[in-house]
Amino acid sequence: MEVRSSARPRLKPGYALLRLRLAGICNTDLELMRGYYGFSGRPGHEFVAEVVAAEDSTWIGKRVVGEINLACGRCDWCGRGLGRHCPRRTVLGIVRHPGAFAEFLTLPVENLREVPRGMSDERAVFTEPVAAACEILEQCAIAKGDEVAVLGDGKLGLLISQTLAIHGAQVHQFGRHRDKLKIAEKAGVTGEIARKLPTNRYHWVVDATGSAEGLAAAVSMTRPRGTVICKSTVHGQVALDMAPVIVNEISLVGSRCGRFEPALKLLAGNKINTAEMIAGRLPLSEAPRAFTFAAQKGILKVLLTS
Amino acid sequence: MEVRSSARPRLKPGYALLRLRLAGICNTDLELMRGYYGFSGRPGHEFVAEVVAAEDSTWIGKRVVGEINLACGRCDWCGRGLGRHCPRRTVLGIVRHPGAFAEFLTLPVENLREVPRGMSDERAVFTEPVAAACEILEQCAIAKGDEVAVLGDGKLGLLISQTLAIHGAQVHQFGRHRDKLKIAEKAGVTGEIARKLPTNRYHWVVDATGSAEGLAAAVSMTRPRGTVICKSTVHGQVALDMAPVIVNEISLVGSRCGRFEPALKLLAGNKINTAEMIAGRLPLSEAPRAFTFAAQKGILKVLLTS
Repeated sequence: MEVRSSARPRLKPGYALLRLRLAGICNTDLELMRGYYGFSGRPGHEFVAEVVAAEDSTWIGKRVVGEINLACGRCDWCGRGLGRHCPRRTVLGIVRHPGAFAEFLTLPVENLREVPRGMSDERAVFTEPVAAACEILEQCAIAKGDEVAVLGDGKLGLLISQTLAIHGAQVHQFGRHRDKLKIAEKAGVTGEIARKLPTNRYHWVVDATGSAEGLAAAVSMTRPRGTVICKSTVHGQVALDMAPVIVNEISLVGSRCGRFEPALKLLAGNKINTAEMIAGRLPLSEAPRAFTFAAQKGILKVLLTS
Repeated sequence: MEVRSSARPRLKPGYALLRLRLAGICNTDLELMRGYYGFSGRPGHEFVAEVVAAEDSTWIGKRVVGEINLACGRCDWCGRGLGRHCPRRTVLGIVRHPGAFAEFLTLPVENLREVPRGMSDERAVFTEPVAAACEILEQCAIAKGDEVAVLGDGKLGLLISQTLAIHGAQVHQFGRHRDKLKIAEKAGVTGEIARKLPTNRYHWVVDATGSAEGLAAAVSMTRPRGTVICKSTVHGQVALDMAPVIVNEISLVGSRCGRFEPALKLLAGNKINTAEMIAGRLPLSEAPRAFTFAAQKGILKVLLTS
C-alpha cells in the first residue's frame, strides 16, 4: 500500500469532479488491499464530497454522496433501473474506476445524490452501506412484525439489523460482542451473544458474518420454506451441505448494493445509531495506519478525512 | 440388501392397507441403499397400489398413488396445508415408515389419491416425481414464454423439463445423452449436449444434475437477479463460490416434494413422455438385480412389480 499525490483528474462529459470531505473504510476495501479479486488501483466507495466542477453548474458547491456503479445507460438492465447489474459497469473503487480515497474523485452526475441539509458528514458517509441494507427490503417481502435473525455484529450486520428494525421487523441479532450488539439495541434490535444458535426457528435469516461458516449456520436457523439473505462476501469457496436447503425448501438470496434514495431517507430519520459505530478518523495521508486500525478485531467504522 | 417375506402389516386407525401393483426406483433409493442418511428399513416411495383394507370401505378396490409425507395433522405446518414440512412427519420408504418395495404397504387414507380411470399403472407410477417437478411451479412464478434452462438429463431432469415445457416455458435442457434428451424433445423441450454452457444467460435455471458440480454450473448460467432451482440431492458438502451469487444477486431455491393433484392432472393430459423413460421391469423378488440395473449409467426408470 502506498499514499500518492495525484493530479486533479480530467473530466469526461457527464462527469462531475468531487473534492472529498469524508470517506469510510469497508471490509471490501480491506479484502481488496489483500489482493482479493485481483484488485489494483485506488479503493474507496463510501464517501461524502463537494462538487467542484460539473457541466451543470447548479451542482457546484453541493454536498453529495454517490452511487458506486457506473452503468452504460443503454442496455436492458439500465433501462429497467438496474444499472447496478449493467454488464458493462465499472464500480467506484472496486472495478476499474478510481476510488474515493483521494482528495479528488470523479463520478457521473447521474450517480450523485445531494446530502440533505442538516445531515452531518459523519452520518451521510454511511449512505452506501445503509443502501446495501435497504436492498434486502427491495428483494424480500419482509412484513412489519416479521421475526428476522441477523447473524453477525460487524459494520454491515449492525446497519442491517437497525434498518430492518426501523422498517418494523422484530430483529434478533446474534453476535460475539456485547458492546457492538448494544449499538443496534438503541434502534430496537434484540441482541444476543451467539453461543447456541436456535435451529429451524426463523422465516428470515440474514448472514452478515463475513465468514465461510456463517452460511451453514444461517441455513440451520431457517424454518422450512424460509429465506437466508446472503450478505457475506467471502473469498473463495464455501462448503455447504445442500441437503437441509433442499429438504426444507429454503431460499438463499444473494444481496449486494442498493439504491441511495431510501438509505438517505432512513438516515435523515435519525433512528440509525451511526455515531457509536465510528471507531476513529484519520487523514488520507495516514491511510495505511487507518487500514491497519480498521482491520483490528472489534473495530467498527474507520473514517478518512481529506 | 436382502429380500424378505413379511407379514401383512396391522392397520392403525385412519390407515389403509395397500397391495402393490407397480413401484419405481428413484435415485434417492439408490443412495439410501448405499447407507446414506443412515437409512435402514424398506425403501420405496414411487408406487401404484390397490386398496385392500380401510375403515371407509368405499376405498376398497380402488387403484391409488400416495403422498409420501405422513404428517401429524395438528401442527401449524399441517394447518397451512404444508404437511410436507411437518417436523413430526415420517416419510414413506425414507424416514421411519416402511416403503413401497413390498407386496403390502400402509399409508394414512388422507395420503391416497385415486388414479384416474384410463391411466395406466406405468404412467401413474410417475406421479411422485412429476409432483416434485410441479413443486417448482408452486415455488417460482415461471411465466408462460419464460426461458428456463434445465441442467441434467436424468430421470428427474427429464420430468422437470417436460413439466415446465407443458406449462408453457421455453425449456432448454442441457445433458450428456442424445437419446435421453430426445425423450423430452417430444414434449417441446429443446435439448442440447452440455459442452460449453452459456454464462449469465437464463433468468431461471434448474439444477437436476445430481452432482456436486451442478450447482456451480447452474449459478454461472444464471442472469443477475435470476433464480437457480436446486433439485439435486447430493450427499455431503458442496463447494460453492458465493461471490457470483452475491454480486449478481442470484436466488437459490431448494425444492423437494410436491402435491399429487397437479401431477395426476398433468399425467392425465398424456403430454409427458413417460413410456420411453422406462428402462425395464422386474419382480420384487429380483429387487437386488433391479437396483444394480437402475444404478447403471444411462439407465432411466426401473420398475418393480408385485
